[in-house]
Amino acid sequence: MPASPEIQMAVSTIIFALRPGPQDLPSLWTPFVPRTREPHLNKWALPGGWLPPHEELEDAAARTLAETTGLHPSYLEQLYTFGKVDRSPTGRVISVVYWALVRADEALKAIPGENVQWFPADHLPELAFDHNDIVKYALERLRTKVEYSEIAHSFLGETFTIAQLRSVHEAVLGHKLDAANFRRSVATSPDLIDTGEVLAGTPHRPPKLFRFQR
Amino acid sequence: MPASPEIQMAVSTIIFALRPGPQDLPSLWTPFVPRTREPHLNKWALPGGWLPPHEELEDAAARTLAETTGLHPSYLEQLYTFGKVDRSPTGRVISVVYWALVRADEALKAIPGENVQWFPADHLPELAFDHNDIVKYALERLRTKVEYSEIAHSFLGETFTIAQLRSVHEAVLGHKLDAANFRRSVATSPDLIDTGEVLAGTPHRPPKLFRFQR
Repeated sequence: MPASPEIQMAVSTIIFALRPGPQDLPSLWTPFVPRTREPHLNKWALPGGWLPPHEELEDAAARTLAETTGLHPSYLEQLYTFGKVDRSPTGRVISVVYWALVRADEALKAIPGENVQWFPADHLPELAFDHNDIVKYALERLRTKVEYSEIAHSFLGETFTIAQLRSVHEAVLGHKLDAANFRRSVATSPDLIDTGEVLAGTPHRPPKLFRFQR
Repeated sequence: MPASPEIQMAVSTIIFALRPGPQDLPSLWTPFVPRTREPHLNKWALPGGWLPPHEELEDAAARTLAETTGLHPSYLEQLYTFGKVDRSPTGRVISVVYWALVRADEALKAIPGENVQWFPADHLPELAFDHNDIVKYALERLRTKVEYSEIAHSFLGETFTIAQLRSVHEAVLGHKLDAANFRRSVATSPDLIDTGEVLAGTPHRPPKLFRFQR
């Protein structure tokens, strides 16, 4: 017989966006919402909620994210399931966590006001439950993702300048890179294609736009 | 209020071992156990069971694996959580799936007899629930794992011959590789270290043993 009626299922979502951070270093920012009930009342938490029995996991993650933040990423990926016996003081809660990387313009669609607050992912306050651990795990996964082209595409869109691409690498790594060295190293990448176009709105020596080979 | 009392939580585990397969091609094999109750009575299923409210996810996966197969891999990794609304005919069941790669000698410790049966992972019968999809997903993840050194280490242990290493690549890819080409391509890998030792028990031209750089 099933032994789990005492277990509650939840979903949470972690969004990363690229925005200027402290000392103008591009950083990864993540939106949080305040807890409106106990436990952890008023602490910041990842957007999420309970899983209704008839809703798919990813649909529940997308819906609770939209309801609390106004964000609608085109696609959510399952990150990990957090289920430690003691992670919630009110009984066993297992949370399936989804994540997405969004472009800065998409991030701006988040509901303004006090219900959503963005924090730099590596400078967080004390969050509700084990949410600090969840963000830490997500950052680690992001840093070991091999496909930087995929990460850059998510944050920047189809085309980008070399400086924009460098800012993605800097944000994920968490430190500055030498601009000349970076330019040299990507120039030799066979996956990077010069589109022949330049960045609009930059009259003097406008930077070239590149894209990744499909 | 929590909306999930009607949701049941389960764990399952998928084990891959390297064994000779059809036409002597090294293959990935996976153990299954027969369903002893409805739904899907008598069909083959991944080892697993219900999650007790006070047991950690990974502990429950390891325990149910050991109880049904006798296997005790040194470590289980969380693979993915499968939770489609209609994946079980008896109500919502969410299954957190763990996986491990084991060496052939470890695989032999599985309980012999009719309660465990190993199948080649890419030639499976119709399994219970969505377990065919789960194995397919695991194979895909294995094939896109970048760290072949890690996969080889799990299957072969600390040291191995070039032929053994090739058999790992062949099993994961699912097709034969040219022996001379493979030897040439790995010979240039800076991560592969000649141990100076040779395979024991092979009197004539015993093959050299290699290991991966840490």
